[in-house]
Amino acid sequence: MSLASINGQQRVVIEKITPQLDGGRFPIKTITNEIVNVEADVFADGHDYIAVRLFHKHQNDKKWHESPMRLIGNDRYVGSFQTIHQGSYQYAVEGWVDHLASWQHEIELKLKDRQYVNVELLVGAAQLDGLAKRASKEDKKGILEVAKIFRAPDRYDEATMLATSKQLADWGAQYPERQGAVRSAELGVVVDRARAQFSTWYSMFPRSAAKQEGQHGTFRDVIDLLPRIERMGFDVLYLPPIHPIGTKFRKGKNNNVNCQPDEPGVPYGIGSELGGHDAIHPDLGTLADFKALVAACHQHGMEIAMDLAIQCSPDHPWARDHKDWFKIRPDGSIQYAENPPKKYQDIYPVNFETPDWQALWLELKRVIFAWAEWGVRIIRVDNPHTKSFGFWEWLISETKAVYPDMIFLAEAFTRPKVMQQLAKLGYAQSYTYYTWRNTKAELTEYLTELTKTDMRHYYRPNFWPNTHDINPPVLQSGHEPAFITRFFMAATLSSNYGIFGPTYEYMVHDVFPGKEEYLNSEKYEIKHWDWEHTNKLTYIITQINKIRKENEALQLTNNLNFCGIDNDQLIAYLKTHANGNRILCVVNLDGNNRQAGVVNVPVHLIGKNPDQEYRVHDLLTGAQYVWRGGQGYVELDPNIVPFHLFRIEDIW
Amino acid sequence: MSLASINGQQRVVIEKITPQLDGGRFPIKTITNEIVNVEADVFADGHDYIAVRLFHKHQNDKKWHESPMRLIGNDRYVGSFQTIHQGSYQYAVEGWVDHLASWQHEIELKLKDRQYVNVELLVGAAQLDGLAKRASKEDKKGILEVAKIFRAPDRYDEATMLATSKQLADWGAQYPERQGAVRSAELGVVVDRARAQFSTWYSMFPRSAAKQEGQHGTFRDVIDLLPRIERMGFDVLYLPPIHPIGTKFRKGKNNNVNCQPDEPGVPYGIGSELGGHDAIHPDLGTLADFKALVAACHQHGMEIAMDLAIQCSPDHPWARDHKDWFKIRPDGSIQYAENPPKKYQDIYPVNFETPDWQALWLELKRVIFAWAEWGVRIIRVDNPHTKSFGFWEWLISETKAVYPDMIFLAEAFTRPKVMQQLAKLGYAQSYTYYTWRNTKAELTEYLTELTKTDMRHYYRPNFWPNTHDINPPVLQSGHEPAFITRFFMAATLSSNYGIFGPTYEYMVHDVFPGKEEYLNSEKYEIKHWDWEHTNKLTYIITQINKIRKENEALQLTNNLNFCGIDNDQLIAYLKTHANGNRILCVVNLDGNNRQAGVVNVPVHLIGKNPDQEYRVHDLLTGAQYVWRGGQGYVELDPNIVPFHLFRIEDIW
Repeated sequence: MSLASINGQQRVVIEKITPQLDGGRFPIKTITNEIVNVEADVFADGHDYIAVRLFHKHQNDKKWHESPMRLIGNDRYVGSFQTIHQGSYQYAVEGWVDHLASWQHEIELKLKDRQYVNVELLVGAAQLDGLAKRASKEDKKGILEVAKIFRAPDRYDEATMLATSKQLADWGAQYPERQGAVRSAELGVVVDRARAQFSTWYSMFPRSAAKQEGQHGTFRDVIDLLPRIERMGFDVLYLPPIHPIGTKFRKGKNNNVNCQPDEPGVPYGIGSELGGHDAIHPDLGTLADFKALVAACHQHGMEIAMDLAIQCSPDHPWARDHKDWFKIRPDGSIQYAENPPKKYQDIYPVNFETPDWQALWLELKRVIFAWAEWGVRIIRVDNPHTKSFGFWEWLISETKAVYPDMIFLAEAFTRPKVMQQLAKLGYAQSYTYYTWRNTKAELTEYLTELTKTDMRHYYRPNFWPNTHDINPPVLQSGHEPAFITRFFMAATLSSNYGIFGPTYEYMVHDVFPGKEEYLNSEKYEIKHWDWEHTNKLTYIITQINKIRKENEALQLTNNLNFCGIDNDQLIAYLKTHANGNRILCVVNLDGNNRQAGVVNVPVHLIGKNPDQEYRVHDLLTGAQYVWRGGQGYVELDPNIVPFHLFRIEDIW
Repeated sequence: MSLASINGQQRVVIEKITPQLDGGRFPIKTITNEIVNVEADVFADGHDYIAVRLFHKHQNDKKWHESPMRLIGNDRYVGSFQTIHQGSYQYAVEGWVDHLASWQHEIELKLKDRQYVNVELLVGAAQLDGLAKRASKEDKKGILEVAKIFRAPDRYDEATMLATSKQLADWGAQYPERQGAVRSAELGVVVDRARAQFSTWYSMFPRSAAKQEGQHGTFRDVIDLLPRIERMGFDVLYLPPIHPIGTKFRKGKNNNVNCQPDEPGVPYGIGSELGGHDAIHPDLGTLADFKALVAACHQHGMEIAMDLAIQCSPDHPWARDHKDWFKIRPDGSIQYAENPPKKYQDIYPVNFETPDWQALWLELKRVIFAWAEWGVRIIRVDNPHTKSFGFWEWLISETKAVYPDMIFLAEAFTRPKVMQQLAKLGYAQSYTYYTWRNTKAELTEYLTELTKTDMRHYYRPNFWPNTHDINPPVLQSGHEPAFITRFFMAATLSSNYGIFGPTYEYMVHDVFPGKEEYLNSEKYEIKHWDWEHTNKLTYIITQINKIRKENEALQLTNNLNFCGIDNDQLIAYLKTHANGNRILCVVNLDGNNRQAGVVNVPVHLIGKNPDQEYRVHDLLTGAQYVWRGGQGYVELDPNIVPFHLFRIEDIW
């Protein structure tokens, strides 16, 4: 180790800064107007006092903001800063040996021991001379005056008073020496807008929005449905791809390879002679119609989520103009999608190993920026895990540099590490395994992983009890309590959730044999719905969405804490907000039998003593009970309402 | 993000490599001839197969060694390498998409589905062409022959057999394409000699080694004591500083500031007109005598540990020639040591913030290298936590670059993070809080931290029940069972331990009032011991050290597992070695009463079924018991022997 590469006078060590992802490789995530609490181990050799500061800076700030960090014990310091703006912040920790504070501490001990500290005062005077050089004009005068008193043998008593004064400490903190200061590496935070953390998704095929059966729905039809969707409490309207659909190898009803001439095809078979990812299916309307839909959504407090599926029908312009973006088979044809032994001749996957990857990336960026110009600020990405990680990191970073309000949702149902990586690379929200987590043990384990591990810092779950691709086993019976509880838990465990629209509301559940998919799936055919129809489930959805809007504890996910309950068919969880809002949910997972049990309420989390009374108020039914301390009895009949959504209220 | 800085064709991600300290900032530690098991999360987008390799390299190796890592589930791979030599190794993980293996997997599925794979065979043939370019002359021939068969329509059956053959997979692994390979950062391992991990320290003041009372002991006297120390089973002889002692402000008996003219002074008041850290106290002997002691130790299977105390008496040459290495007070005097309100006028601490730090560091390195030339290979550093961290990192690295067999022991009793940092920076062994951990709960918690957290990778504990500085409360009664159990636990919980020689053996325990120090401490005066005297404790020390040498399970620390036992006064722990050696220790922490209990033996760790019998054989007393399954009864009388040291033996 060459001495030339070392600053031998640096004595401070900074370690274990939290939050921190993979040694700073990835930023953490938060939203605007949140507090980021930063902790670090900071220490020096010996017994000197140290000063520790937190630095932070928004991407547009020219200068760093600096604030003190305070010791919380065991050489660990804590500080915080607020994320005001969208975009990205950097933060870092700096520390140095605080000679003035050390000197003050030592002289205090010596004075208590009645030692004569004349030499120590001279040492202090020299320190003050240095301090004065960094001070404001006014303070400089004051500081030099104190130095003078330290040097005046006849003002000893005055000097010892000043030596231990708060004024001196304040000056030291304001004009620190920073000699041998050590600075940590810079860490990042991506700051999204609030909807990244709290959103309520409604998914529907716009072509099924027609008022008359047999007609192809349009964006104008969707506009007419917005009051209904808004009334139900949704704020994101997610549409599967709206682009022209290819005809070559087009799939028919129920994925039939023999497509009838009048069948509409699958929206994921993107591209025809009418255009690709930047074109709109003519039967849905024009670009003007789409822009009108975007505007109408805004008027209803909602916004559109587009679907980015990076794949092509054989008729897509890219398949003609950019054959080298695909794998070419030895016979010269483009390699269609496969999941051996299955073949999907209607889909060409893009080859991210293409030597022409730069042109491919730029074209995909062009598509995203075109959508952004149309007014789109949420993009649900289809199967992101089959496209290269590096591409996503670049694309999301490029997009957010211009559109910091853009939200990307990863529709990845794959292995845990892959899903986590996508979130680390920049996805603001992510699909989850919730769809298949049914038992109390499964739910508890999975939610604990999401909310108590590192994942809390970068992985924002979006819970879907069903999707247009997935008809999960738990719902295949069509049993109403299952639909209610699966919806309810999605909406209360996670602050982001969504449903595949009328299919869910009306409890459609016919199974394609041998698959977790819908029979007569809407992916392959146009449906017609009676949008006026209401039922118990639509009522509950509407009420719960309203309650979510009124209770901030339900607008967070990481504030989740499970409560013990002495019945394996009952699951109970508490969510608390810093503003005092406290929500306790209890769910009967048994769709057939009434279940009862005693909830263990963690009283310290609701600000109560073990012998204090409080009210639990069911915000759906209006029922109210008075509980005392850490235990509360519940009884839930799945055929009435299979859950309690209690707000915890103080009794005055 | 500029596209120019990206390799867009790379698809593999490598994360969470273990072992790894603080993101690779520090190396882990091991000893020669050990296996390092490396794990990593490695994955790519999509469903392709990937190849994962572990690379490692000794500091003197020109080329990297490469070995495959295997998937153990959840995208986690494991591999290993052996540390043959002392010094440092680097390791790294590399991964790439394995197109040939992916192709083999897919064609296998298609063949099972009875698909006609003629086009796939042509794809494979092209891959084989690439493979052949990297192959040995012989294999090249074979590979091209297979490619030819893949392309021959009339040899279809033969081709499909070859396509799924192990031969093809082997060629793929031997001559991989490595296209878009991703390589992790390099991580480090420091490899020490075996004694860094297993050592038995005996500490004594050589000036107390004289045969006649009233005489100043010499190195020659120490040489005469070596057979006794060897017989007791020690292999490191640690000597407090052996340098000339200053006279200015010299301290007398019991730290008296009024020193009598004939008092010898404190060995830590280093330096006089006779020299400093590179000189030898003339009353101990000459440098030739010291070298004779080093040689004699080697003949007895032992070695010397020197004491590095970076501080000076006012008479030290540095205080004359390098005043700028110290803090200068306004009156021009050198600042003596203080721990306000206490003053230590006999000691000048070195100022590591000196602008002349480079000269200071080089002088200290010169001292260490001088000692190394004298034959010293173990250095116990006094209070390393009051010298700068950067200095230690540099000094240890510089020293080990030339003397990779040098072992540094940190005598730091301070805050946890500081002690940990010193170990991370290169100390091979470290003092611990064992000296003050007495109850079952304290011992269990502390040993769990040492052996089950990250500390296991870099912090090698050295347990001392007493030192010449510390007469701990638990021993101040002089009660024999306490001396026995504190010794026994040090020697069996930790593979490295030591005692402050005759003071411990003969259970000296007089307390300096108000301090955890010895009354009439040997630091301030010369003692005279009857080295022929033996007692129960010297017998037990001798036997336990012999048992440590014969049982490899006691030569490791991180192999510790506590066993449940239904009595808070009894503590039980198991140590197992890969060679089958299994040691179970049970200690009665109650020095006054017989205690009994039932040990829960973790049968899976001793290779037994819950209903299998085995023998527990007390290696000290010879007693043998047959236990069955997970429970064994013990009863220990502190006045007989307060512990069991069982070897677990199979019954055939």
